Amino acid sequence: MAKRKRNREQVKKAGLLPGTLVYTGQRMMESVKITVMDYDEQNFHEKQVQKIEDCFEFKTKPTVTWINIDGLHDAKIIEKIGNHYDIHPLVLEDILHIGQRPKFNDLEKYIFVVLMMLHFDEASQTVQSEQISFVLGSNYLISFQENIGDVFDQIRDRIRNAKGKIRKMNHDYLLYSLLDAIVDSYFSILEKLGEKIESLEEELSNNPEKKTLQQIHNLKREMIFLRKSVWPLRELISSLQRSESELIKDSTKAYLKDIYDHTIQVIDSIDSFRDIISSIQDLYLSIVSNRMNEVMKVLTIIATIFIPLTFIAGVYGMNFDNIPELRWKYGYAAVLLMMIAVSAGMLYYFKRNKWL
Amino acid sequence: MAKRKRNREQVKKAGLLPGTLVYTGQRMMESVKITVMDYDEQNFHEKQVQKIEDCFEFKTKPTVTWINIDGLHDAKIIEKIGNHYDIHPLVLEDILHIGQRPKFNDLEKYIFVVLMMLHFDEASQTVQSEQISFVLGSNYLISFQENIGDVFDQIRDRIRNAKGKIRKMNHDYLLYSLLDAIVDSYFSILEKLGEKIESLEEELSNNPEKKTLQQIHNLKREMIFLRKSVWPLRELISSLQRSESELIKDSTKAYLKDIYDHTIQVIDSIDSFRDIISSIQDLYLSIVSNRMNEVMKVLTIIATIFIPLTFIAGVYGMNFDNIPELRWKYGYAAVLLMMIAVSAGMLYYFKRNKWL
Amino acid sequence: MAKRKRNREQVKKAGLLPGTLVYTGQRMMESVKITVMDYDEQNFHEKQVQKIEDCFEFKTKPTVTWINIDGLHDAKIIEKIGNHYDIHPLVLEDILHIGQRPKFNDLEKYIFVVLMMLHFDEASQTVQSEQISFVLGSNYLISFQENIGDVFDQIRDRIRNAKGKIRKMNHDYLLYSLLDAIVDSYFSILEKLGEKIESLEEELSNNPEKKTLQQIHNLKREMIFLRKSVWPLRELISSLQRSESELIKDSTKAYLKDIYDHTIQVIDSIDSFRDIISSIQDLYLSIVSNRMNEVMKVLTIIATIFIPLTFIAGVYGMNFDNIPELRWKYGYAAVLLMMIAVSAGMLYYFKRNKWL
Amino acid sequence: MAKRKRNREQVKKAGLLPGTLVYTGQRMMESVKITVMDYDEQNFHEKQVQKIEDCFEFKTKPTVTWINIDGLHDAKIIEKIGNHYDIHPLVLEDILHIGQRPKFNDLEKYIFVVLMMLHFDEASQTVQSEQISFVLGSNYLISFQENIGDVFDQIRDRIRNAKGKIRKMNHDYLLYSLLDAIVDSYFSILEKLGEKIESLEEELSNNPEKKTLQQIHNLKREMIFLRKSVWPLRELISSLQRSESELIKDSTKAYLKDIYDHTIQVIDSIDSFRDIISSIQDLYLSIVSNRMNEVMKVLTIIATIFIPLTFIAGVYGMNFDNIPELRWKYGYAAVLLMMIAVSAGMLYYFKRNKWL
Amino acid sequence: MAKRKRNREQVKKAGLLPGTLVYTGQRMMESVKITVMDYDEQNFHEKQVQKIEDCFEFKTKPTVTWINIDGLHDAKIIEKIGNHYDIHPLVLEDILHIGQRPKFNDLEKYIFVVLMMLHFDEASQTVQSEQISFVLGSNYLISFQENIGDVFDQIRDRIRNAKGKIRKMNHDYLLYSLLDAIVDSYFSILEKLGEKIESLEEELSNNPEKKTLQQIHNLKREMIFLRKSVWPLRELISSLQRSESELIKDSTKAYLKDIYDHTIQVIDSIDSFRDIISSIQDLYLSIVSNRMNEVMKVLTIIATIFIPLTFIAGVYGMNFDNIPELRWKYGYAAVLLMMIAVSAGMLYYFKRNKWL
Repeated sequence: MAKRKRNREQVKKAGLLPGTLVYTGQRMMESVKITVMDYDEQNFHEKQVQKIEDCFEFKTKPTVTWINIDGLHDAKIIEKIGNHYDIHPLVLEDILHIGQRPKFNDLEKYIFVVLMMLHFDEASQTVQSEQISFVLGSNYLISFQENIGDVFDQIRDRIRNAKGKIRKMNHDYLLYSLLDAIVDSYFSILEKLGEKIESLEEELSNNPEKKTLQQIHNLKREMIFLRKSVWPLRELISSLQRSESELIKDSTKAYLKDIYDHTIQVIDSIDSFRDIISSIQDLYLSIVSNRMNEVMKVLTIIATIFIPLTFIAGVYGMNFDNIPELRWKYGYAAVLLMMIAVSAGMLYYFKRNKWL
Repeated sequence: MAKRKRNREQVKKAGLLPGTLVYTGQRMMESVKITVMDYDEQNFHEKQVQKIEDCFEFKTKPTVTWINIDGLHDAKIIEKIGNHYDIHPLVLEDILHIGQRPKFNDLEKYIFVVLMMLHFDEASQTVQSEQISFVLGSNYLISFQENIGDVFDQIRDRIRNAKGKIRKMNHDYLLYSLLDAIVDSYFSILEKLGEKIESLEEELSNNPEKKTLQQIHNLKREMIFLRKSVWPLRELISSLQRSESELIKDSTKAYLKDIYDHTIQVIDSIDSFRDIISSIQDLYLSIVSNRMNEVMKVLTIIATIFIPLTFIAGVYGMNFDNIPELRWKYGYAAVLLMMIAVSAGMLYYFKRNKWL
Repeated sequence: MAKRKRNREQVKKAGLLPGTLVYTGQRMMESVKITVMDYDEQNFHEKQVQKIEDCFEFKTKPTVTWINIDGLHDAKIIEKIGNHYDIHPLVLEDILHIGQRPKFNDLEKYIFVVLMMLHFDEASQTVQSEQISFVLGSNYLISFQENIGDVFDQIRDRIRNAKGKIRKMNHDYLLYSLLDAIVDSYFSILEKLGEKIESLEEELSNNPEKKTLQQIHNLKREMIFLRKSVWPLRELISSLQRSESELIKDSTKAYLKDIYDHTIQVIDSIDSFRDIISSIQDLYLSIVSNRMNEVMKVLTIIATIFIPLTFIAGVYGMNFDNIPELRWKYGYAAVLLMMIAVSAGMLYYFKRNKWL
Repeated sequence: MAKRKRNREQVKKAGLLPGTLVYTGQRMMESVKITVMDYDEQNFHEKQVQKIEDCFEFKTKPTVTWINIDGLHDAKIIEKIGNHYDIHPLVLEDILHIGQRPKFNDLEKYIFVVLMMLHFDEASQTVQSEQISFVLGSNYLISFQENIGDVFDQIRDRIRNAKGKIRKMNHDYLLYSLLDAIVDSYFSILEKLGEKIESLEEELSNNPEKKTLQQIHNLKREMIFLRKSVWPLRELISSLQRSESELIKDSTKAYLKDIYDHTIQVIDSIDSFRDIISSIQDLYLSIVSNRMNEVMKVLTIIATIFIPLTFIAGVYGMNFDNIPELRWKYGYAAVLLMMIAVSAGMLYYFKRNKWL
Repeated sequence: MAKRKRNREQVKKAGLLPGTLVYTGQRMMESVKITVMDYDEQNFHEKQVQKIEDCFEFKTKPTVTWINIDGLHDAKIIEKIGNHYDIHPLVLEDILHIGQRPKFNDLEKYIFVVLMMLHFDEASQTVQSEQISFVLGSNYLISFQENIGDVFDQIRDRIRNAKGKIRKMNHDYLLYSLLDAIVDSYFSILEKLGEKIESLEEELSNNPEKKTLQQIHNLKREMIFLRKSVWPLRELISSLQRSESELIKDSTKAYLKDIYDHTIQVIDSIDSFRDIISSIQDLYLSIVSNRMNEVMKVLTIIATIFIPLTFIAGVYGMNFDNIPELRWKYGYAAVLLMMIAVSAGMLYYFKRNKWL
């Protein structure tokens, strides 16, 4: 689980001065990638900059500026942005400090939002998480991601091609669009997990194996992890919506209500999935135990039929000088008949008790 | 489960512009069916129209107009209605976007309600769901359904024949009547599931089989699905009732309180059913495990009686030259007596321990 | 379960006009029995009337009038009362509509209370329920019951004999007394169920049988049913107590607080009982599984002792021409000793492992 | 369980007039014991009175008067006190009516508090409960107990010897001291139960027996009982503390906060204990099931090794005229070697599968 | 568990006067260690004092004074501090009274905070707890610990070396820093437990042993203990943050919000860990039960194959004079072939039923 690895990082940090900027995640890239999009209804500029200072020119423009930073391991870059845009040290710390609980802070001059971007990794068949932070100022939006790759490509397209009303709208609508894309991506994860659950159910009704057990356990863990990630989001969106900050316009709040509904729906689905997985586990255990019973029954039937027969054979295998039956002409036939009678009796008893 | 299939549809939509009208359900009909009912206390008109424009004439009339649309796959029709009745794009999106959580929005000029219409499909023995949306304006009510067929036939009859006071009442009373019919239909689903539970219990006390297990699991899933569908309804009705919209009159609110009580009752029943199913599952597992014990006991009794006897027979089946007993005249009889004594002792021991 | 049968009745009603008066319970009596008690501190009249109209004379008197109606199948009688006392059609519907959730409605001119009267049926050993409704007006109290027979006999005695202060008090005190008698009767049901639980526990420690399992399941169902019936009562009494209706005097509210405390106590007891039943079930399963282990142990001990011995006997039962041991003089004795040694070793091993 | 016996008593009372004074507990003493302590900073009087009237002289004095009554079966005494101190009949009823839920009532002229005094009975190894009621007036405190013997001896000492500040303080501080002593005594019960849990855990890791199961069940029941007794106390203390009665001074309220903290701590501990007991039960069941597995393994190993060997011996015990092996010189030796090889193979197989 | 031992100590105290100062923990050191740090932005003094009176000189200075006391067994020292700094007796009692629930009290002239300092003891592999209390006055902070050794060394370094802004800040910031260090240390405990859980999971998938069960139980207990310790912290920090005390500045409150977020994160993690441990236990039990099934299957297969064969051998081992087959030339070969046929049939049956 990514989460626990993160706690480990955090530990290393424990005891440092509050406000010391140290990235607590894992370094996975060589250099930090900075992309700027600047637009209003008529104009659009997009560029990838090498130095963070190249972004600062947009600060004074009235256009919408979206600075996206992929990679947090270079604390100096974050510090420079912090200084330029006058961001509180504790906020910068939160941006770098991986493993944050999703939350929303209103700091008057700007709004800070941190949450989890999740995606389903096909290779490892697990849910991967990445922390994403947003700083929304009066005429800029800065987003901080751990790694390259996100769920915003369609939004970028819309901005480039002026599709929909995004170019006509303001910074807060851009933030809404990005949050909406993140929450929408949760549905595709639920979708994947739903498929896994369905295939588990099919597997169960056909042929439950030992690995099924491990899969159920893994699915449970995914659900626990997902729930822990999504649950605080509800609160976040709700406080964003009720926020009295002037940075979020009332028109955007109506859209946020929509995200809120989606978040509730995600949580509802996770809870239902957890219930279903519990039920599947019960089913699995019962099926296994039923099989065991069947095996036991076969053993019992075979054993209870043949043990008495073997005993009879044993009796007439004794070497006593004086066993009259042994001398009878049809002694052997009689014993064979007796054996048939005993096993028929047994079988009848089993039939009557519905064991066959 | 219908729900999960829907998530899949929704995924395809993720990333689209908010406000883009795309139907996310499954197309199941050729053409959209539009029915209009227009009435006041004296007059009544009913017609099935081909083009949605044919409905618009009623907009300016002071009578009660109910436009019912069966089929959502033709997004253009929905868009035309949206334009004519001035409905917000996000609302239109919600109407088309299958898999909504039941909710109520007050948009001043009109009220938007979306919920689930459930029915029990006898063929598949499962609960089927269909999304239904209502837009209640000052003098019209528009209802949007996915498929033809609903639970409103008795209400249509009442309108046609001026039974009850529905013709004397306003739009909001019509909405109440429709909601009431939907909630009432939940009772018949509970009824069906209650019967299934009762037959399960009877089956258990007679002859639990392996398929019982699967049935219990299926019932549990139905309950999880039902709870997820009905739970938000409580909130919906409650906010409808507390709403300050002028579109809902105080006289109607008293009736809404009645629906609210029914919803609570449905939720109570689902919770009780879930508890009962849990208890049935416990019972099933215990019965199966009890059976297993019985089988084991039989094996143990047979085996423990005959194993020592077979051993004795084996001893006297040995070929040693010098086994004095074999030469005794009544050696065979003595051994048989000994065997009878041993098995009697065993049986007594079992009796005393209450294994027989 | 009475409850589920009722849902079935309710279903038949679904789709009818709201306000149509149809009794949804089962008809169990020939005629409706109407009893009137009219009293103040000095005077007391009691009569059983044939026609409901005979009660109406009391309406204008300032005395306390209690009209009790046993039997709801004659909807006309209910309608007449409704008309005479000006009761809202929805209230009349609730009275006839069996399976109501306990609730309290303040309709200004009168108060409507509906709840469950429970009693323990000795014959079927189950909890039976009956719906009872009260309409409390300015100078009358009307009670509607499904069947003859209730828990109010002691209250009637008190009124007849002017015992206690009931004759000095008003209508609201009469309502309190009746509610108090109902809640008090819940204690006797708890008492019965508590005895059942205790006898179950005793049975368990002596000799758990298969039917114990079914009994535990039945008790669980009773508790689920009881909890569903009593839980809403808490809310009912609480809102009655906080009600601002002038029909309930402050002096009576102090008494209602007392009923409220009792209701909480009933709910507490039900919850404790549920926990205890769960614990009993765990105990039962463990006892059964322990027994199984004992049986298995006996089998294992017998089998593991005799199987090697039988093998040894088998070896010397072989017919090889050349088995030197068979020719030894004390070969038989040596083999017997070996067998004793083997079984002693086995027994010692079992002892050391505490299996004996 | 004491609780259920009480419900039974209560049942007998059901149907009586509210306000009728009947003691619903079990009579356990010959006569009622009445003790009076009267003190201020300088003076101290203590006496045991025969007649309740002997206490009444203190009513008019400004000193602190504590009347303690051990034994509730003489309803007349309670009635006399009620009359003299002007106590509401419902309060007197609650005092006599054993099995009350802990609660606090503010009746302006006096405060009524009823709760449970618990102690651990060493003989029966169970938690025993006794109801205690307090009536706090302007210059008196009356306490009603069922039986002689309580947890207040140290407080009596403090009053007698003017230890601490109790003699300088008022009635409300006396009430606080008594409540504090009761809540403190809960800790010693938790202590006892904690010891029992620890000894259970030790027993488990050494040698789980069948009676362990019963002990776990009993501990669970004690916890259920304890929780039911302590849970309402939280509310009681909290409302006492928030009370606006002039009888409780602000200085005392700070002390009540302390009791409140202790109550929360008791509830926390009970909840933790319940979780631990659940975990112990899981452990017990798993240990038992593990043992079973071990037993089964031994059986399986012995059986699977010897069954094939016995078969081989059986083959060469057959009496066919023409079995060439029987004539071989080293046939016997060869068979013995084969048997050793077979069992070695089996043992190797078991080793590889880690069954040994 | 440390907790339960503490309850035992507390019991000894029950019945004492409130306000009597008795240390209820275990004495673990010879003498009490008192350390003083006094600083402002320019100056810094640190000394270890022998007598508590040596600290009092700092009381009148405007600098920040941090008095840390390791060891609570000398109640006189605590009493002297109490007198000098005018601390309420109940607060002193709470400081000495080990086993407090974490809480915060605002006493106007000073603030009292008590909570748990946890650390993971590598030797016993358990979580150890120590109570720590803080008294924050207008220009001093006194901390009381049970034992020498804490998590504050890095904070001491920062003060000594004027690292970060701690020297520029006030008493409340010092308190925040200490609380932050404590909550941060919780993460390292979670880290340790997370590692234990991961190693448990690995062990499970490789080779579950009997001791795994005990480990799972121990981990569960740790989690129950941890949850009980951390849960009230949430409330504590929250009330500290909402406190209207002038001793805590608004600038510090922003930092407290940060601790609050961390506490929530710790609780979230504990809850997730509990869920995961539950799931691991389920997995363990299922694996064990699966193994059992495998063992049973082997037994069944071996037994069911050889029991019939042994029976056949037994039949031809009988000594009847007249068994024709015994005389046949190829009788032996025929029997051997029959045996092979029977076992092949059995194996085919097992294969078809997927038992092999």
